[in-house]
Amino acid sequence: MSHPHPDLPAPGPLPEGGLRVVALGGLGEIGRNMTVLEFGGRLLIVDCGVLFPEESQPGVDLILPDFASLEDRMDEIEAVVLTHGHEDHIGGLPFLLRLRPDLPLLGSRLTLALVEAKLREHRITPITLEVAAGSRERLGPFDLEFVAVNHSIPDALAVAIRTPAGLVLHTGDFKMDQLPLDARITDLNSFARLGDEGVDLFLVDSTNAEVPGFIPSEREIGPVLDSVFARSRGRVIVASFASHIHRVQQVIDAAVAHGRKVAFVGRSMVRTMGVARDLGYLRVPEGVLVSMDELSELPDDRAVLVCTGSQGEPMAVLSRIANSDHAIKVGPDDTIILASSLIPGNENAVNRVINGLTRTGAKVIHRGNALVHVSGHASAGELLYVYNIVRPRNVMPVHGEWRHLRANAALARQTGVPEDRIVLAEDGVVVDLVDGVASIVGSVPVGYVYVDGAGVGDISEVALTDRRVLGEEGFISIFVAVDIVEGKVVAGPEIETRGFHEDPDVLKPVRDNVRREVEEALAAGVVDPHQLQQRVRRVVGRWVSQTHRRRPMILPVVVEA
Amino acid sequence: MSHPHPDLPAPGPLPEGGLRVVALGGLGEIGRNMTVLEFGGRLLIVDCGVLFPEESQPGVDLILPDFASLEDRMDEIEAVVLTHGHEDHIGGLPFLLRLRPDLPLLGSRLTLALVEAKLREHRITPITLEVAAGSRERLGPFDLEFVAVNHSIPDALAVAIRTPAGLVLHTGDFKMDQLPLDARITDLNSFARLGDEGVDLFLVDSTNAEVPGFIPSEREIGPVLDSVFARSRGRVIVASFASHIHRVQQVIDAAVAHGRKVAFVGRSMVRTMGVARDLGYLRVPEGVLVSMDELSELPDDRAVLVCTGSQGEPMAVLSRIANSDHAIKVGPDDTIILASSLIPGNENAVNRVINGLTRTGAKVIHRGNALVHVSGHASAGELLYVYNIVRPRNVMPVHGEWRHLRANAALARQTGVPEDRIVLAEDGVVVDLVDGVASIVGSVPVGYVYVDGAGVGDISEVALTDRRVLGEEGFISIFVAVDIVEGKVVAGPEIETRGFHEDPDVLKPVRDNVRREVEEALAAGVVDPHQLQQRVRRVVGRWVSQTHRRRPMILPVVVEA
Repeated sequence: MSHPHPDLPAPGPLPEGGLRVVALGGLGEIGRNMTVLEFGGRLLIVDCGVLFPEESQPGVDLILPDFASLEDRMDEIEAVVLTHGHEDHIGGLPFLLRLRPDLPLLGSRLTLALVEAKLREHRITPITLEVAAGSRERLGPFDLEFVAVNHSIPDALAVAIRTPAGLVLHTGDFKMDQLPLDARITDLNSFARLGDEGVDLFLVDSTNAEVPGFIPSEREIGPVLDSVFARSRGRVIVASFASHIHRVQQVIDAAVAHGRKVAFVGRSMVRTMGVARDLGYLRVPEGVLVSMDELSELPDDRAVLVCTGSQGEPMAVLSRIANSDHAIKVGPDDTIILASSLIPGNENAVNRVINGLTRTGAKVIHRGNALVHVSGHASAGELLYVYNIVRPRNVMPVHGEWRHLRANAALARQTGVPEDRIVLAEDGVVVDLVDGVASIVGSVPVGYVYVDGAGVGDISEVALTDRRVLGEEGFISIFVAVDIVEGKVVAGPEIETRGFHEDPDVLKPVRDNVRREVEEALAAGVVDPHQLQQRVRRVVGRWVSQTHRRRPMILPVVVEA
Repeated sequence: MSHPHPDLPAPGPLPEGGLRVVALGGLGEIGRNMTVLEFGGRLLIVDCGVLFPEESQPGVDLILPDFASLEDRMDEIEAVVLTHGHEDHIGGLPFLLRLRPDLPLLGSRLTLALVEAKLREHRITPITLEVAAGSRERLGPFDLEFVAVNHSIPDALAVAIRTPAGLVLHTGDFKMDQLPLDARITDLNSFARLGDEGVDLFLVDSTNAEVPGFIPSEREIGPVLDSVFARSRGRVIVASFASHIHRVQQVIDAAVAHGRKVAFVGRSMVRTMGVARDLGYLRVPEGVLVSMDELSELPDDRAVLVCTGSQGEPMAVLSRIANSDHAIKVGPDDTIILASSLIPGNENAVNRVINGLTRTGAKVIHRGNALVHVSGHASAGELLYVYNIVRPRNVMPVHGEWRHLRANAALARQTGVPEDRIVLAEDGVVVDLVDGVASIVGSVPVGYVYVDGAGVGDISEVALTDRRVLGEEGFISIFVAVDIVEGKVVAGPEIETRGFHEDPDVLKPVRDNVRREVEEALAAGVVDPHQLQQRVRRVVGRWVSQTHRRRPMILPVVVEA
């Protein structure tokens, strides 16, 4: 098993007839999946997703893959293949298409419909090519074959990529539900056929590689929902992911079975379910879907609300209901179902929602107390099947943090893939497939590209470090205007603090210290504002550390009047 | 079941012969446990703990119970009973004792030793009274009997409190391990005897009331550690809670069995294990314990490191090893065991540690992949035993968030406690036991008291809100000195930002806008600095919102030169 190297050099040129693979995202993290393949000077991209920030990246809206290594090569890209319509696979497209609006996008019918709806909000009309399971497309040196896979969104695809260097099979995200609602299982027959042909490099979803055994079928949630609905005397409110069409289908089925009507709440939920319904992926009998206004006219025991906010997002309807900050008030008769996973990092927020709802007396059903969620990714037992069917020559685990990549590598090894044919790489690591052997040959620089408000990439690690300090400790700013000629302070010291202390009077003593320090410095001939600022910083810093044992940010500004 | 009332009035006077119970912490949250009992004008306190802040309370070190309702009554307090030595039960003492240093503290031998070691660091020598299982103490109107309970720290006690109003039984924190390492089980015989006498009010630990079934014995961890040690070719590093003496005992036993030596790392680990060893709660054969320096001289396969940092605390040894920021470098031969729970809110931090360690190739064992932790609190199946043995007349779930309190209440109801004899209260809610019936009669105001650095209570919700804004968005400060007589700007506008944008030049355009705005205002006769500041804030706020779609904190300062 190749081990990661901390100081990989820039790679040499790709050998004639070799295939190069670089992930710009998704390796060493869960999210912003993006893999770049190169053959004969031409590039193919698989997916272009976003990563959602965690608490150490405060105020950031999204994190993009780093496109820097592509910027001079945009014209060499044949196309972007989209395996499915989740944000961590398509969310980066609006930003990639800024660099080249006519990049062709390939994907299944539902995937492209969701991409187009998303891009419309960014006022982009993409060039698309719809593909389906079994489709073959030739794009430059890349001969693509698409394979059906089952996932937590319909119409997902794996992609087999043939080049003269060999056959690459990229699973995308997939699971192995053997009885999915839409009967569209992961096509192991095609995996077997490709395995017989010889898969030279197998890129495999690692998300659940640490999870032992097998994932229950989505179908098993139906009876649970049915029994919850049967026992509910009041409203039923279901929070789920806006993209989970089969989960919502089962909620609708339960609602119909119990004579209830359903309203969708939340922009992304309404948008996705609209697309899904238009294309026939969601089936809703006539008259079941109503508006929120219509729903509020119904007796509670006929109402179902389907909303987002299952991750405790503070502005979502669910959090506002839990905070008693919404027109919908819940009480002991009502039932709330969190029919979703708990994305790591959201535990506190979700816990707050559960406590807020529980406090009202409402019944809260969640994955901790009922089977109302199943994962969308193949677990260890299922991955073993896949490895045994594909019998790959080289394996590169993708889509996961280090713990997941390494667990996936262990599964490959257990099924007989030789240790030295398993490539453990992280973002930016360059893997070449040459003469049937995949190996790490170097790395390209990749970083986090933060989207914050209207800005892309203008928030740096320095700004985030500043935010962390400000968020933990607040700041003290000190303004002083000086007359250098007269050698005196003409305005200020004006001291302001935020996030530091309740009582502004606490700063009075330091005000005199600052004035004295500045006037002494001026008297000693120090007139450089920067030097004066350093002296002010020292005085205030020493005082705050000794008196308060804290380390707020200190911002001294000395200007000449 | 009494439901919480959002606007409870101040309670009337306690009726003659009645007992009053008010929790100042621990109800509606996990932590800062503190219960105040009142009879005949005298008070008894059970526990005085701290709560650890979550991400919505940035920069806070600790959260205390709100002592405000006690401040005028400190002389009426008979004593503080400490059920066990965990921080969430004793951590508030240094702050409570500031209000009255001679408050008597009652607790078991180990509990008091840990309290005294803690208070020494605050230079406080407390007045203590050691008690033990079976002890009885009369303190004013309160007749106390102590009962052994098993928990994740040795020498824990429940307390029965007899007053003329009735018998109160407070479990403290407890679990039901039937084969604990020290053979000191929760004394159900005494619970049964008290139940036969008649428990009028039963205060019951709710922490695990949502967890179905039974908690495995601490003893079951031993063989798991043994097999991990047996397979380890390199170092073994075990991270655990500094107070978990039995867990550490089992690590030491495994080390001895496999011919390894042990070093403790981390101030709190060294302190607690020192106390535990001195008092005989931790048994270490001669020569097994070594210093870090001695350990580093040993071959890797003879070394065991026991440290803190199991919650991913960034400055702890474990995080630094995971970050390759420590003299100890781990690799594929080494094994790290996280022998602890995962406290909600720490998931991301722990995940970072696991990924960092996994990246090195080291083997990481944690509660997700092996039985290396068991909880310290009785779960639902165990609580049913306790309710059936005690058969309480009134029940008040304690120690838990709403979800836990409500789950505990449901268990009480299932064992036959009438719905109207189960009191669901949160912090500050006043419960009176009068004529054998417990009921909510009002509330006293309680808030969060934040400890930050040297300050107690000087950080307000406003400051925390400011920190949240600063941490998410950063700030822009604008300093202008004006000459009112001349009607002109004499210094500035000086604009500074932190945590907002990479490029300082981005603020150039707004500088001119601010100058123009101020000079126009001065020309129009506006000379009040506050009004001028408001104008500056508007100009900058509008610009930043339109240009950047962000909302940093804006701090305008206009001073007269």
